[in-house]
Amino acid sequence: MAKNFTKRDEDYSQWYNELVVKADLAEHSAVRGCMVIKPYGYAIWEKMQAQLDKMFKATGHQNAYFPLFVPKSLFEAEEKNAEGFAKECAIVTHYRLKTDPNNKAKLIVDPEAKLEEELIVRPTSEAIIWNTYKGWIESYRDLPILVNQWANVVRWEMRTRLFLRTAEFLWQEGHTAHATKEEAIEETEKMLGVYANFVEEFMAVPVIKGIKTENERFAGAEETYCIEALMQDGKALQAGTSHFLGQNFAKAFDVKYSTKEGNREYVWATSWGVSTRLMGALIMTHSDDEGLVLPPKLAPIQVVIIPIYKGEEQLAQISERALQIKSEIEAKGISVKYDDRDTYKPGFKFADYEMKGVPVRIAIGPRDLENGTVEVARRDTKEKETLQQKDIANKIEHLLENIQKNIYQKAIDFREEKTQKADTWDEFKTIIDKKGGFVLAHWDGTSETEEKIKQATKATIRCIPLGEYEEGTLNTDSKAGKCVFSGAPSKQRVIFAKAY
Amino acid sequence: MAKNFTKRDEDYSQWYNELVVKADLAEHSAVRGCMVIKPYGYAIWEKMQAQLDKMFKATGHQNAYFPLFVPKSLFEAEEKNAEGFAKECAIVTHYRLKTDPNNKAKLIVDPEAKLEEELIVRPTSEAIIWNTYKGWIESYRDLPILVNQWANVVRWEMRTRLFLRTAEFLWQEGHTAHATKEEAIEETEKMLGVYANFVEEFMAVPVIKGIKTENERFAGAEETYCIEALMQDGKALQAGTSHFLGQNFAKAFDVKYSTKEGNREYVWATSWGVSTRLMGALIMTHSDDEGLVLPPKLAPIQVVIIPIYKGEEQLAQISERALQIKSEIEAKGISVKYDDRDTYKPGFKFADYEMKGVPVRIAIGPRDLENGTVEVARRDTKEKETLQQKDIANKIEHLLENIQKNIYQKAIDFREEKTQKADTWDEFKTIIDKKGGFVLAHWDGTSETEEKIKQATKATIRCIPLGEYEEGTLNTDSKAGKCVFSGAPSKQRVIFAKAY
Repeated sequence: MAKNFTKRDEDYSQWYNELVVKADLAEHSAVRGCMVIKPYGYAIWEKMQAQLDKMFKATGHQNAYFPLFVPKSLFEAEEKNAEGFAKECAIVTHYRLKTDPNNKAKLIVDPEAKLEEELIVRPTSEAIIWNTYKGWIESYRDLPILVNQWANVVRWEMRTRLFLRTAEFLWQEGHTAHATKEEAIEETEKMLGVYANFVEEFMAVPVIKGIKTENERFAGAEETYCIEALMQDGKALQAGTSHFLGQNFAKAFDVKYSTKEGNREYVWATSWGVSTRLMGALIMTHSDDEGLVLPPKLAPIQVVIIPIYKGEEQLAQISERALQIKSEIEAKGISVKYDDRDTYKPGFKFADYEMKGVPVRIAIGPRDLENGTVEVARRDTKEKETLQQKDIANKIEHLLENIQKNIYQKAIDFREEKTQKADTWDEFKTIIDKKGGFVLAHWDGTSETEEKIKQATKATIRCIPLGEYEEGTLNTDSKAGKCVFSGAPSKQRVIFAKAY
Repeated sequence: MAKNFTKRDEDYSQWYNELVVKADLAEHSAVRGCMVIKPYGYAIWEKMQAQLDKMFKATGHQNAYFPLFVPKSLFEAEEKNAEGFAKECAIVTHYRLKTDPNNKAKLIVDPEAKLEEELIVRPTSEAIIWNTYKGWIESYRDLPILVNQWANVVRWEMRTRLFLRTAEFLWQEGHTAHATKEEAIEETEKMLGVYANFVEEFMAVPVIKGIKTENERFAGAEETYCIEALMQDGKALQAGTSHFLGQNFAKAFDVKYSTKEGNREYVWATSWGVSTRLMGALIMTHSDDEGLVLPPKLAPIQVVIIPIYKGEEQLAQISERALQIKSEIEAKGISVKYDDRDTYKPGFKFADYEMKGVPVRIAIGPRDLENGTVEVARRDTKEKETLQQKDIANKIEHLLENIQKNIYQKAIDFREEKTQKADTWDEFKTIIDKKGGFVLAHWDGTSETEEKIKQATKATIRCIPLGEYEEGTLNTDSKAGKCVFSGAPSKQRVIFAKAY
């Protein structure tokens, strides 16, 4: 399997593209920039969805569903948001095809079926949702509204990559409405926390929580909070965003509520989303030159059992024991696959499950039957050991926990190693050029400087880290300093990196 | 709540439209024909999805995701399918908006961003999926492919009704590929069985399994199997379809496989789907003039507890006991809501939960505290009784089971009453006109007769019932006879009805 598979240090980008296809996660479709998410890839996404959905509901949110289309007049109502998405949206202009009079086997757009008003395929749903909320909100009793939507969205990206940037992608978008600014900000921060917990605890990907600069802010937001992860090639990946929208959408769609005192006031809003892009972060953070490495908590198959045998009689003996072991392990709530296909040899299966990132592989051969043992291999470190079958379920359970912790720690260590302070412009350029990773540097707070740094180095400000991060393993040095580029005063270090 | 609420016998259609909105299930959106599914309605859909998804997985299917768009050239590849959907599809022709030079606050479609090939928003996904399967299938080892997709689809319907017929709707579509015709037919029938089990056991809606006539068949199918339910106004509703597609799509997209013997043969296909239309069936089958009636197995809130109190002190005492009861019932895996809002009076709450179809309501007042009792009301029969708090969880559990059975039996009884044989054309017309319901009649098997009956009475052939139905409570009389319209020979009775 690992044959014809590019290594990370040869060409990281190529390695990623190949891995996504070889591990059966996704592939390009006949539609420009749109992907097909294959069953194995979708099974991982389903596990992510299930966990996130649970966390959203635990924080009081309910799901709902809003239309795929946004009429142009609604789309343009919130000006900044419209401007931000206008250049990359799919537009429905007609509602009927007809037979081509010149070729009866072909269809053409029926010019008589032109829509009076064009429909935009949602790139995000603030407009259609706030137009709906107008009908839901009358008084303070109707607030807060805490709604989430699981949906597909379309952004007409010019350069696309599987999971990382596709014209159509799957996501969830939370849209909440609040009586006060404080409550909306609290919600924005709470959901950023939910995202960070999910990504770290389940995906085993460490993230930095921060705030975007004005340049990088969501179009239509007052403040964009984000979580930023670091990939193995030293590039950053924005893993989730949570926006405090102020009263921008309430004003654009005239959504007011009556306070207890009877005044009419504009409603405060948030929105927050994560997408199938998280699949890209998951893949790139842990995987290696043999293929995917999955955190046990999100692996569709956590343990695979492979029989090593000659002839049907031996297979029957091994299968009996293997299926007992499977049941014992499954009783712990662990998903186990027994692969006794006779159309493939063990070596092929080993490589295949390695490529697919199955965390634990158990092999059972005739000698294991005699000795009451199994061979257990872990995907992350590729270590193998022979274990007694007795109490195997507990051993596997601990091993899975251990793998989850280990790959998370490995990712943290990697990030530590790839995070550096830069105090001079030369230092800054050298790190960005040669080493990559996160660079903590002072910045004068102007978009102008940010833009110049980007032009010179391709590095952007990933975020202005939030307070908590200082207490983490890295000290961002919140003291004032001087901008690494302009020398002008800076309040605190911010995080620069090249990014996906 | 029930004020200003049309009664079923006044105007059934109006009653339905009002109910969907009053019970907070869905509403019309700013986009013609597209609906907003509100949190309470979506919670019911989520329960349906979760159960169906479990049943699909238990029968060996995996989920995947395919693009929203279908390039026109793929769309037109399977001719009948293309023809069937061409007249009602949303077409993306452009990928960018730009500022209107005449009005800078407005956006217009950028004429320079015209797509080379138009994209059809999927009305169904056979085309894009079979174009993908071409790359997945090489030999018999790659078969069967058993894939399902949860997605939104768009059909540009001219007359729309919430849940029953909307331009955009949510659904699942299974698409399977098989080596043999027999296996594909077996799959088609198996999934029809899954649908029937789900609809009867969980939705408590009895269905008839049958086969569609050629007129009513899915465009591109060799045979369409269906389940048909009967609504309270005597009209039929198609609740799900399962299609045997033969080799039509394999031929259109040139999908062949190598047999064990090394021959190249076309692959056999099925597709099957149910949609948010099931919500319409659920609502219409059980609900009454006070609002929604939900089967306990799909109710987002199965039990609501409402305190009856004067003053905060009394509320505190009642709440303590109510929350204990809530915990006891929840320990059975039953969802319970305790509604102690002081902004609404008990009478309002009673009517509201009645409108929302919550199966069981428990009221606790000061006298109940003294007596160790609660008042339990069931939504389906509106019976109330005073029960001892002791062992309340078991009592509620049995009550919920009882409600599930009762509403199912009620729906079966209704259908029995509304199902009649017609042996003459006069009889036929009279039943369809006056009584409605299912009419079992002989039909000569021609599309011409079917069409004439439809023109004369608006009744269509809902299905040619499958064998099993004869063993049911109704005997469809599979013996031969004479067509109720033409007098020509008929092999068996078929089921006619006016339909949604």
